[in-house]
Amino acid sequence: MSSEKTDNKKSYIQHIGIISSCFPEKFGIPRQPGLVAHSSAVIDLYPPFNRAEMVSGLGEFSHIWVQFLFHQAAGDGWRSTVRPPRLGGQKRCGVFACRTPHRPNHIGLSAVRLLDIELGRNGPRLHLGGVDFLDKTPVLDIKPYLPYSDAIPDAAAGFAAITESGAPEQIRFTDAAAEFCHRYQLRYQRPLQNLIGELLTADPRPRSQKRKKEFGMRLWDVNIRWRMEEWGALVIAVDFWEEKPAWLDQTALSDNKE
Amino acid sequence: MSSEKTDNKKSYIQHIGIISSCFPEKFGIPRQPGLVAHSSAVIDLYPPFNRAEMVSGLGEFSHIWVQFLFHQAAGDGWRSTVRPPRLGGQKRCGVFACRTPHRPNHIGLSAVRLLDIELGRNGPRLHLGGVDFLDKTPVLDIKPYLPYSDAIPDAAAGFAAITESGAPEQIRFTDAAAEFCHRYQLRYQRPLQNLIGELLTADPRPRSQKRKKEFGMRLWDVNIRWRMEEWGALVIAVDFWEEKPAWLDQTALSDNKE
Repeated sequence: MSSEKTDNKKSYIQHIGIISSCFPEKFGIPRQPGLVAHSSAVIDLYPPFNRAEMVSGLGEFSHIWVQFLFHQAAGDGWRSTVRPPRLGGQKRCGVFACRTPHRPNHIGLSAVRLLDIELGRNGPRLHLGGVDFLDKTPVLDIKPYLPYSDAIPDAAAGFAAITESGAPEQIRFTDAAAEFCHRYQLRYQRPLQNLIGELLTADPRPRSQKRKKEFGMRLWDVNIRWRMEEWGALVIAVDFWEEKPAWLDQTALSDNKE
Repeated sequence: MSSEKTDNKKSYIQHIGIISSCFPEKFGIPRQPGLVAHSSAVIDLYPPFNRAEMVSGLGEFSHIWVQFLFHQAAGDGWRSTVRPPRLGGQKRCGVFACRTPHRPNHIGLSAVRLLDIELGRNGPRLHLGGVDFLDKTPVLDIKPYLPYSDAIPDAAAGFAAITESGAPEQIRFTDAAAEFCHRYQLRYQRPLQNLIGELLTADPRPRSQKRKKEFGMRLWDVNIRWRMEEWGALVIAVDFWEEKPAWLDQTALSDNKE
């Protein structure tokens, strides 16, 4: 039908903004957005895309599409096929049949909850929930979610309809871990304990590592360690990555390290 | 949170394929995909993105996301605000609060039905239904539609929840127009009459032109003219754009012109 093919044509895209999220590293990020309601992020728009009028009316929508760049994967290039976790990490499927970051153009797509639009001196800041973005992700576009054309609940989901097995049934916290979460939450207004619970329920362990007993992941400036038990997952330590801030030193939290 | 802002950072994107669709021009294209079930298109992938293994497993999904370039709008740049048809063409809303093609990066997003994957000598050809793509649209990415994270039927839809008024209640065809559609359909296996009916029901007329009586649009290689009547829309003529093909000359279709 198209008579002249313009093979390998290229276009420029600009980064219109940047995401700051609770996920400083890939490990732990839920495989799709919406699975982990307490995960959160903000988008700050760059000039000239940061004029308040550019998001006028967006606040009436409960959800938005964020098109973004898988910036950490971009350096690795792309692969023709991948081994999706739901296929047990053994079977391969085509890159266009899954949502892997290692794809041509490295464009990501997530429907997330729009919690608030804050109009600051540097332009709009969008507050988002139910996210699966890595911190510092470049944003390419923002669109409203239109349920009458975007929501197809009875779509056939291929291999993605397969339920993964082995996710922990129960999540428990040591007293010290729970106490840290409680204080952190009071200080930063971040729902740390709920978020850890949701993330472990979604089971971030790669198939290849499921024989390991202990795991660690990072959320915001916090390091989390948990141990797999027969009944589920026990969160054994929650602590800051690096130096402890002064306010923490004055508390009784020093026993939350192993 | 993000300490160094990299304003106006740019990336390259490659066109991974091209769309051939039933819509050779913008006028008549439904405002969102899925509204017009009989609209159709194919995607042909460019090398090196046309290896069969790259779509392996995709056939198990009923719907896919196509991320594409609004190539006709790209030359016009973008606007901070637009006047969406649903707001009567008067009120403005921000570019990120609507799905206008005149947006930064000109990236489009449509969930469409995946009808078939044809594996030819030049690689996979994806057959799609319920599309809103302009013919010759460059493709940037293809992803499976995952209902468990993409389908949010109860999302609040802002101004997009407003129903437009003035759409024709009935669509009728003159005998000559219906006869042309019938013969065209037999010849090309394209559901022309159903498609015209669906498109007119979705009412492609821009608000600014609603006082006009007669309208025209093109589908594939065919020109369609209709007239607004009190009871709805009357399709008065369906004909080829340019020269009539030989097979048509031998038929009794010469009376389908006004």
